[in-house]
Amino acid sequence: MELSLPLDSYLEEYRYKYIAIYYALRDAILEGRLPSGSKLPSTRYLANLYNISRGSVAQSYDMLLAEGYVQMIVGKGTFVTHAGPTPGTEEQAFSADITLSSWGQRLMSQYRTHYDKPKLKGEISFLLEGMPIEYFPYDEWRSALAYAGGKGGGDLAVVARPEGDAELREAIAGHLRITRGIAVEASNVVLFSGSMQGIAILSQLLVNEGEPVVVEDPGYHGIRNAVQACGGTIVRGDVDAEGLIPEEWNARVLFVTPSRQFPTGAVLSLDRRRQILKWAQKQEGVIIEDDYDSEFRWGGRPIEPLKALDLEGRVIYVGSFSKTMFAGLRLGYAILPNALVESVVQAKALYDPISPGLLEQRALAYFMIHGHYKRHLRRMTRIYRMRHDRLCSLMSDHMSDIFCLIKGDAGLHIYANWQRSAEEYEAFKVAAKSRNVEFRDASAYRIIPGPLAACFGFAHLDDEQMVEGVNRLATAWQDMQQ
Amino acid sequence: MELSLPLDSYLEEYRYKYIAIYYALRDAILEGRLPSGSKLPSTRYLANLYNISRGSVAQSYDMLLAEGYVQMIVGKGTFVTHAGPTPGTEEQAFSADITLSSWGQRLMSQYRTHYDKPKLKGEISFLLEGMPIEYFPYDEWRSALAYAGGKGGGDLAVVARPEGDAELREAIAGHLRITRGIAVEASNVVLFSGSMQGIAILSQLLVNEGEPVVVEDPGYHGIRNAVQACGGTIVRGDVDAEGLIPEEWNARVLFVTPSRQFPTGAVLSLDRRRQILKWAQKQEGVIIEDDYDSEFRWGGRPIEPLKALDLEGRVIYVGSFSKTMFAGLRLGYAILPNALVESVVQAKALYDPISPGLLEQRALAYFMIHGHYKRHLRRMTRIYRMRHDRLCSLMSDHMSDIFCLIKGDAGLHIYANWQRSAEEYEAFKVAAKSRNVEFRDASAYRIIPGPLAACFGFAHLDDEQMVEGVNRLATAWQDMQQ
Repeated sequence: MELSLPLDSYLEEYRYKYIAIYYALRDAILEGRLPSGSKLPSTRYLANLYNISRGSVAQSYDMLLAEGYVQMIVGKGTFVTHAGPTPGTEEQAFSADITLSSWGQRLMSQYRTHYDKPKLKGEISFLLEGMPIEYFPYDEWRSALAYAGGKGGGDLAVVARPEGDAELREAIAGHLRITRGIAVEASNVVLFSGSMQGIAILSQLLVNEGEPVVVEDPGYHGIRNAVQACGGTIVRGDVDAEGLIPEEWNARVLFVTPSRQFPTGAVLSLDRRRQILKWAQKQEGVIIEDDYDSEFRWGGRPIEPLKALDLEGRVIYVGSFSKTMFAGLRLGYAILPNALVESVVQAKALYDPISPGLLEQRALAYFMIHGHYKRHLRRMTRIYRMRHDRLCSLMSDHMSDIFCLIKGDAGLHIYANWQRSAEEYEAFKVAAKSRNVEFRDASAYRIIPGPLAACFGFAHLDDEQMVEGVNRLATAWQDMQQ
Repeated sequence: MELSLPLDSYLEEYRYKYIAIYYALRDAILEGRLPSGSKLPSTRYLANLYNISRGSVAQSYDMLLAEGYVQMIVGKGTFVTHAGPTPGTEEQAFSADITLSSWGQRLMSQYRTHYDKPKLKGEISFLLEGMPIEYFPYDEWRSALAYAGGKGGGDLAVVARPEGDAELREAIAGHLRITRGIAVEASNVVLFSGSMQGIAILSQLLVNEGEPVVVEDPGYHGIRNAVQACGGTIVRGDVDAEGLIPEEWNARVLFVTPSRQFPTGAVLSLDRRRQILKWAQKQEGVIIEDDYDSEFRWGGRPIEPLKALDLEGRVIYVGSFSKTMFAGLRLGYAILPNALVESVVQAKALYDPISPGLLEQRALAYFMIHGHYKRHLRRMTRIYRMRHDRLCSLMSDHMSDIFCLIKGDAGLHIYANWQRSAEEYEAFKVAAKSRNVEFRDASAYRIIPGPLAACFGFAHLDDEQMVEGVNRLATAWQDMQQ
């Protein structure tokens, strides 16, 4: 028996002797040092040879047997059955080409979500980055989390059905009844890991391959991606200062942001709301109303959602806590017509048979029920109003040559139309970058080219940063004039 | 001006006067008491009439104007433009029929996920309920959560890319290199909200409508649901005591549970592993290896996954923490061939542009890095081995007439073949229920009828409960004999 196992190195690597032997033998088999048909030494022999217990050797043989590397023939011994090394290297182990489904191919051919690069040192960013975390009621949130996770270990075993935590669904229904005038019961609320999951799942449930689907242009590219992944055909809905312009679209599904059009900020007029509802009724269609950030409304009470005017059950209302709480909290929801509750729950269950994020769901329910959410919204609305007004006045003072602002009364960004040529816009974007200031070219949100515009997020910027940012933008423009 | 607003009740309901007025007027318009064309009273008149400030009235008029209920004609006044009540009641608001896409229709026609009813009082349940939470290292998990969520508020603003927290992906790669022998880098790890999300998304990326897909029979119905929702055609793969029986399937995609077949517990022999890998190579296909609960292996070291033998990059390995940690922690992952990383991330981003559950992801990374996870697995493996052996011996002693146990060396349930007639099985299930003891009829996992069998989950049951449960089952059988 001339088998030489480099057992010492295996014994160093692995804590248990039987595992070290197992690996030493297995590698010898896989590398061809113990070819198929060769007989393994007896357990006694190997135990003596390496000064280990016979039990350990036997255990490693059992493992090889269980995995089929060896075969035991009663009265004869243990024989290698594995055919030896397969040609190939570890490099190859991750390298085969794999053909995607047509869903996958559609997905890969579409506009990709941009992940903003880490900020450069000293950069001022007007990208839409969400909230100033320094104003977040962190202590209250921590208490809520501790409450949610802290009722003793038993709670960990509780799993939430796919539609999510019942208490939070109740709290959301209550919040929407009061602040939005939607007559909604908790049973019509389904929670998602962010509103985008809801939009993607709703698209799958509603959109057939080749089916025309109306989306706003400009609009949120995530919605277009979801529709296109299903094979839906995008029908552009034009947008003006009163929001989406109704038409007699030959379609059955419409996505719209009536309370605050994304990204222009336009509020859909009541007349148009009613026209759109009538259209949906005529088409026996369905409207997905995406209410992404209108909770922060300082020009009076929040605009009433389309859902509150919907008497037929053709509107699905989608909301989110990512902007009102913090971006890392992935919690969105849909208010569903009865006709869709069961299928949406079933579709959600396909991906999440148990609702994820239960800890945060419960914490948020606690946070809402105890009034922290309402207080937080009220406070942030004041802060955002001040920031909005400040940025408007800074931009009016210093950049009215180049941008015409669409002043809003809600939301977390300002939409501004570019006043110069397309060539100058390109040059300005470069100049701004070189001045270390970032903003979002709104053409990213367009399906077909339209008037040039930009979005300026202000939620996360304090006064000093806004002054500096606008100053840099103005200087960038001046640079270009020379 | 004879307009009568029931303003007192509105003032009671709403905190701000302008909002109360807004709603009073709006309701009057919507209910037809202020018909289209009628002129609103002047702000001064209304202010005097109700003894409120003129500013409040003006603000409420602005809101009505913004929403299009009224129109202001300069020099003439403010006029109602809304057409009045729409026929219909609130009941109807959720009642329209909405046609589902073919994806939705396929989804709704398939086997539904069962959500176990709440336990009856005194019931003993052998359903597959996961772990005994009393053994969970709750203090360590709480510390990990506090660490993850507690580095000051700034962390709340951090969002994770769709593939999930980098530290956890690194920790998983390290864990799999050591315990599974998979040569994996963090860049090939994508996190999901549970392994089912991964399976559903992978199905969408790989399965075309009408495409044949091999799944094990018996097997996990969630996989079948995911394939069927994509329109895939299920190809049955038979299973025996060595796991899935390889065939020259005319297909490109295969789902398999090699380490511990679900639900039979069979370990796929090495020979078959290699056959299946060869098949995938020949078909230029892809294998999705679902390793759902083999971490708890007491018969030696964990069986090596198919992925460790995969030299071509045709195997996707899917794992989960729901069984090793607790069911409410929705955290799964896939180890992807290079060819699929980008498309899986893009698909995940369609649903979750920002990874949900970041708090728990970070907590788990901390928990793993600090050795708590390994210690927990080791401890639970001992406990599960004892429980498994105890349940086996109880059932052998008291139920060998009716069930033939397939003893395992891993996992959290025992698979047992029914030894009597189909009629007797039906009667036995009823008798067991009336004795207040639950178990899972394994025919729920079958595509076509096969040998009758049952699954008995033991993870959550202590000795006393197992004794009582087996006693009830045996008594139920005795009941039937009389």
